[in-house]
Amino acid sequence: MIIDRLFDSVNKNGHVCLGLDTDFTYLPEEFSKKFVNIEDAIFGFNKKIIDSTFDVVSCYKVQIAYYEAYGLKGLLAYKRTLEYLREKKAVIIADIKRGDIAKTAEMYAKAHFEGDFESDFVTLNPYMGLDGIEPYMPYLEKKEKGIFILLRTSNKGAYDIQYIKTERGSTVYDEVGEKIYDLGKKVIGNSGYSSIGAVVGCTHVEEGIEIRNKFKNMFFLIPGYGAQGGTAKEVSLYLREGNGGVVNSSRGILLAYKKIENGAKIFDQCAREAAIDMRDAIRKSLEA
Amino acid sequence: MIIDRLFDSVNKNGHVCLGLDTDFTYLPEEFSKKFVNIEDAIFGFNKKIIDSTFDVVSCYKVQIAYYEAYGLKGLLAYKRTLEYLREKKAVIIADIKRGDIAKTAEMYAKAHFEGDFESDFVTLNPYMGLDGIEPYMPYLEKKEKGIFILLRTSNKGAYDIQYIKTERGSTVYDEVGEKIYDLGKKVIGNSGYSSIGAVVGCTHVEEGIEIRNKFKNMFFLIPGYGAQGGTAKEVSLYLREGNGGVVNSSRGILLAYKKIENGAKIFDQCAREAAIDMRDAIRKSLEA
Repeated sequence: MIIDRLFDSVNKNGHVCLGLDTDFTYLPEEFSKKFVNIEDAIFGFNKKIIDSTFDVVSCYKVQIAYYEAYGLKGLLAYKRTLEYLREKKAVIIADIKRGDIAKTAEMYAKAHFEGDFESDFVTLNPYMGLDGIEPYMPYLEKKEKGIFILLRTSNKGAYDIQYIKTERGSTVYDEVGEKIYDLGKKVIGNSGYSSIGAVVGCTHVEEGIEIRNKFKNMFFLIPGYGAQGGTAKEVSLYLREGNGGVVNSSRGILLAYKKIENGAKIFDQCAREAAIDMRDAIRKSLEA
Repeated sequence: MIIDRLFDSVNKNGHVCLGLDTDFTYLPEEFSKKFVNIEDAIFGFNKKIIDSTFDVVSCYKVQIAYYEAYGLKGLLAYKRTLEYLREKKAVIIADIKRGDIAKTAEMYAKAHFEGDFESDFVTLNPYMGLDGIEPYMPYLEKKEKGIFILLRTSNKGAYDIQYIKTERGSTVYDEVGEKIYDLGKKVIGNSGYSSIGAVVGCTHVEEGIEIRNKFKNMFFLIPGYGAQGGTAKEVSLYLREGNGGVVNSSRGILLAYKKIENGAKIFDQCAREAAIDMRDAIRKSLEA
């Protein structure tokens, strides 16, 4: 199962999930000016980043919004990025956060698990309910695909819905978690983790311990590191025996070149070093 | 404001929102075989449907999932459909149900309110919280755009999250509604309705009356008619003084041709008749 591939990749390369949230403005000017088309420039940048990091990260998360924003050209860069990642045998998480039901959900599953935009995992939004997850299940059961469902995020607005206190004395996110966890039992891999994982922000220490203990075989996609305030120490609370989660960083790695003089010329090398630093910081906090 | 354009369109052409959820398999074979490319066939079908219905529907809802499922070719058909709708001066709702935060939400706003995929309204998912709505606000305030936020849907899975009972003795959807309603007060048009509307399924009669009374200047995008069990009578409970909502129908109109012998040859005419029947059924139930 794909979740076992991701589990093995974490053991081998560490916990970093490199977010390819590639805005055109992130590209060093002297790099982007070599290209005639925006799609070539964005793909060219991603390719250099992938080439310099694939042995020090566990997976790549490609945020489709950044590509959609450039219309068809952006989505061509998206397609080519996914193709290149497959060629490199990297584990791909398509951060699409789609959420719909019935035939529409079937169409989204087809869109992102087959054809031009094929990836290994997609992120999904649970608001419409679990019948919106059903159309993905055949892909999880037969085609080596996986999903991460939004559970509890680390932005301020998380309090608007996810933290609403429920009649049962729980929270919305906790009740969502229970439902996802039950569904996930159908697709557990050899690693002991389910192909239905969850997106869980890495801030809020106490909840982290609680969520980790409650949902033992749920694999976490963990945003919020760095820019959003999460530290390696906090991240470690969301992991279990050194695995069970990947930690996303996007700008912290893609834009690492901006932190050093003349970094633009070696942006790929800077990205590699930032990824290694992050990987080692997380490993170290796990040993502590 | 765009919401006023939609309000006027309802007064003029009725409540039908025609859903262009165009799966390639919906096309009559004798029509689709005239085209070499899938993108030409899908756009060609949409064009015929639009040409035959634009004076009897208030707006069009284009479900992006159906186009994403065909990858770049599908999205080319999506782009051309939106362009054609703009040419016809039709009000366009892009049913994208995106939901993200910060810069990612900015990128989605850019993607669907500018450039290749520009539309008038987009549907959004609130699960991550209202900070995910903020990046759309400048477009609502300055650029004549609008949004519909998922509130309460009519699928079975709606009970999984939307109906969770809260500590306050309310439901999640109701608390979400209150938050959206407050935000919507910033962008109220001459019609008295806000450019922040909500997606509210048309089943569940009692709740319909309650939601309508509680959120007076919220415009509703109402799915669930026909195939999902909603009737014209139920729909009328979600309207106010004959306006305040549009009612989506997709397959009921696109596939109307399958109900009559040799309908395939006149699929566009069949769609027109189905749209007129639906428009008149809703008008009649409002008069009753």
